[in-house]
Amino acid sequence: MKEYALISVQNKKNLSMICKIFKKNNVDIISTGGTYKAIKKLGFKVLKVSEITKFEEVLDGRVKTLHPKIHAGILFDRKKNNHQKTIAKKNIPTIEYLVVDLYDFKKTIKNTNDLEKCIENIDIGGHSLIRSAAKNYKYVNVLTDIKDYKKLNYELNLNNGKTSINFRKKLASKAFKSIYKYDLVISDWFNNNNNLLFKKLKYGENPHQKARLVSKKNNPILSFIKKIQGKEMSYNNINDTICAISCIKDLKKFATVFVKHANPCGAAQNNNILKAFDNALASDKQSAYGGVVIFNKSVNDQLAKKIKKIHLDIVIAPNFSKSALNILKNKKIIILILKKTNQKKELKSIPGGLIEQEVDKVVVKRKNLKCVTKYSSQNRLLDDMIFAYTIAKHVKSNAVVITKNFQVLGIGAGQMSRVDAIEIAMKKMTKNFAKNSSYVIASDGFLPFSDNINKLKKPGCKGIIQPGGSKNDSFIIKKANKYKIPMYFTGIRQFKH
Amino acid sequence: MKEYALISVQNKKNLSMICKIFKKNNVDIISTGGTYKAIKKLGFKVLKVSEITKFEEVLDGRVKTLHPKIHAGILFDRKKNNHQKTIAKKNIPTIEYLVVDLYDFKKTIKNTNDLEKCIENIDIGGHSLIRSAAKNYKYVNVLTDIKDYKKLNYELNLNNGKTSINFRKKLASKAFKSIYKYDLVISDWFNNNNNLLFKKLKYGENPHQKARLVSKKNNPILSFIKKIQGKEMSYNNINDTICAISCIKDLKKFATVFVKHANPCGAAQNNNILKAFDNALASDKQSAYGGVVIFNKSVNDQLAKKIKKIHLDIVIAPNFSKSALNILKNKKIIILILKKTNQKKELKSIPGGLIEQEVDKVVVKRKNLKCVTKYSSQNRLLDDMIFAYTIAKHVKSNAVVITKNFQVLGIGAGQMSRVDAIEIAMKKMTKNFAKNSSYVIASDGFLPFSDNINKLKKPGCKGIIQPGGSKNDSFIIKKANKYKIPMYFTGIRQFKH
Repeated sequence: MKEYALISVQNKKNLSMICKIFKKNNVDIISTGGTYKAIKKLGFKVLKVSEITKFEEVLDGRVKTLHPKIHAGILFDRKKNNHQKTIAKKNIPTIEYLVVDLYDFKKTIKNTNDLEKCIENIDIGGHSLIRSAAKNYKYVNVLTDIKDYKKLNYELNLNNGKTSINFRKKLASKAFKSIYKYDLVISDWFNNNNNLLFKKLKYGENPHQKARLVSKKNNPILSFIKKIQGKEMSYNNINDTICAISCIKDLKKFATVFVKHANPCGAAQNNNILKAFDNALASDKQSAYGGVVIFNKSVNDQLAKKIKKIHLDIVIAPNFSKSALNILKNKKIIILILKKTNQKKELKSIPGGLIEQEVDKVVVKRKNLKCVTKYSSQNRLLDDMIFAYTIAKHVKSNAVVITKNFQVLGIGAGQMSRVDAIEIAMKKMTKNFAKNSSYVIASDGFLPFSDNINKLKKPGCKGIIQPGGSKNDSFIIKKANKYKIPMYFTGIRQFKH
Repeated sequence: MKEYALISVQNKKNLSMICKIFKKNNVDIISTGGTYKAIKKLGFKVLKVSEITKFEEVLDGRVKTLHPKIHAGILFDRKKNNHQKTIAKKNIPTIEYLVVDLYDFKKTIKNTNDLEKCIENIDIGGHSLIRSAAKNYKYVNVLTDIKDYKKLNYELNLNNGKTSINFRKKLASKAFKSIYKYDLVISDWFNNNNNLLFKKLKYGENPHQKARLVSKKNNPILSFIKKIQGKEMSYNNINDTICAISCIKDLKKFATVFVKHANPCGAAQNNNILKAFDNALASDKQSAYGGVVIFNKSVNDQLAKKIKKIHLDIVIAPNFSKSALNILKNKKIIILILKKTNQKKELKSIPGGLIEQEVDKVVVKRKNLKCVTKYSSQNRLLDDMIFAYTIAKHVKSNAVVITKNFQVLGIGAGQMSRVDAIEIAMKKMTKNFAKNSSYVIASDGFLPFSDNINKLKKPGCKGIIQPGGSKNDSFIIKKANKYKIPMYFTGIRQFKH
């Protein structure tokens, strides 16, 4: 049975090579359009598709190869008698080789803004041929990549002018991959998806780590903030900003949070935004240096004057008054306007994959609090405990946060032992608020041992808030009762690592 | 001009509805195969495709619609005179509506393991029709989803039996999307990709957060470890395991690392693995409780006996002797064998996207160290400094690590202020190693102020290792010289958040 190769390529490079291969192996060539002319010009014998289909090229060549005789020549089952009979009876060529490439649609849409031209470029005929040939890889060789010409030659030499099923399957795998990729670009273009967007960052957490921003479909990069002023944001800037935003979103009234090394290092709520700022800064002025500050209300000029006085990398707020921006305009600081965000899931890489979890959106409320001691607290103190607990949620675990009147007095962050976190928070409070006599304390995980209570400065402690759930709870409650400290369980652990 | 609708659907639901819509709007129906029979049975007038193509169904229906008359009827440009003439001359039907669905290929490969059957199910004809119609959405309506029948009816009622260009474009967008998704499944199947694999976790960092494992193509889930014993791993277990693995990979000799809350809390290197274990445990026995322990060498029975004595969640090693496994078999502990990993990039979610960076693979070597003080150290102390610095790389920033003879004596983890990290590390050392007189200290970022040196226990300090690069470097060097402490700069900052 005579064997045929159908060739129709955009990329005419090495066309001579592939024609030679077919000639050497006694395979006749069928072609159409520009490829037909090029093969003729190279001096090879070539049949026109229309000579086979007897259907002349119409509609400016739109439907040249979309013909049952061509597709049957590719698709028929070489082992079925009825198929073979039809092929013989209808003079259908046995197409054993298909050489068709698809013009990169990305280039098309890059090179022109003309919608009609782009659409005209969507390949129908070649695309169908490739899928037919790939489907019937059991018999047919589908070459979609110029690089495979040489491999075909090698394969034919190796197997006495035949190809192996493995070779054909490989070609088909490649073909199906190129097909879906081609249509993905079209689909994204049609659906106004921009695929993923990438933006190089100067570097990652450290200068020797390359890094980039990746934005999901339909989302401009860093769409949750709008930069008003300042230098390019670094990886660590972005990381700190995320921490600041997630924390401020959980706070009420006028709130201020300072962030450093992806941990809150100062925070306060107040009816007066200036007081909230002063209090949050006073939490730990030393750590705030060079950090990020975030507000949940607009920055006015009075606040801007306060910001101007301290060294900070970034200031974030839902808005800034014109005069505030004017005050800050000569200061070396990044100014960000906080836009709406609604992140539902967070990912973390592990080797060979990811772990994905829901974002922790829980903010403890009064109704979650269960008094477990003989002594209870007034509502105002309960709210202060909730404030402390909310800040602790955003501090890396083990986290302990001490507050008074909605001002953070001490943070024990990222400790491997709960008691260390308590000691650190206590020490920070003593250092920065020597005169303070009363406070409440929050722990993001349960207190594991009753000696944790021993570490508290008594009688200053007016309340403990913690998830509860330790097997030692009863001992810890007993100890709290002994010192007459009201203790509340939230029942909701809030680790963050 | 007579309008036609070509219908060929797997899902025959609502077939009657769509036929009624066409009848009402004076659109003639063309169909083939099973759909033709079903429409006939429903009592609607319907033309056979072969009556138009005059090409009888051959090859068991493989090439029914792959005919230029059909595709021309879809693809021709209604505004071009030469196209219109061809259509009229060749008796080509003006196909204004295409109703074709693709059978879910995922279901095909799920329902059978018969390769031939799967391949037979790859749609060629319907697929081509959809792409032709979507391409020519300027004129043609392409319905690929049963849900769109009602919408079409609404649209036709609204516009006096016509559809709007926006409506048709929407249909085409949907069609192109379904096309690439269909071929993606085929391509992944052909290329042995399993797409993404998902595995539900009990919960995330906290019980109220849903979570799952996601594995990339070709990678089984958690392929970097093999579980030998123990309960299902939790999100936090996995997170701690990642930290432990990345740390142990950077260590030499026989090494042991304890991890808690995604931070190393104890570590040691020794020529004797039992001694390495004892030393690492002694770093901070309290924090190690309930944590993860990892080794870079096989666990023998002597080591297993030591592990058995302490409460740990997970033990990881490249291997375990049979007798070691036997010793641990009744202990409530997860046993993991560490397999090869080569993670190159790490991702972190931000609202609407990701930040991606190279994994920090740098481990500081002697050649990176630059002595900046009048006093220098012996090689053994240099290696101890490198050990401390390597552990600090894996502790959350700001991180400070104190070691002696390749044993961690104190870790200051996750602090917002460098001086706090130093104080915490010092305090931990004093608490756990009261009798110790000498040590070296590492900082993952530069020391920002010379008062950092004041916090060191002198004269015990035999060496400081830090990246350098502060504008205050000269003051810090001066202070180190004053106390006769050798100080080395690595030039390589190693933050981790």
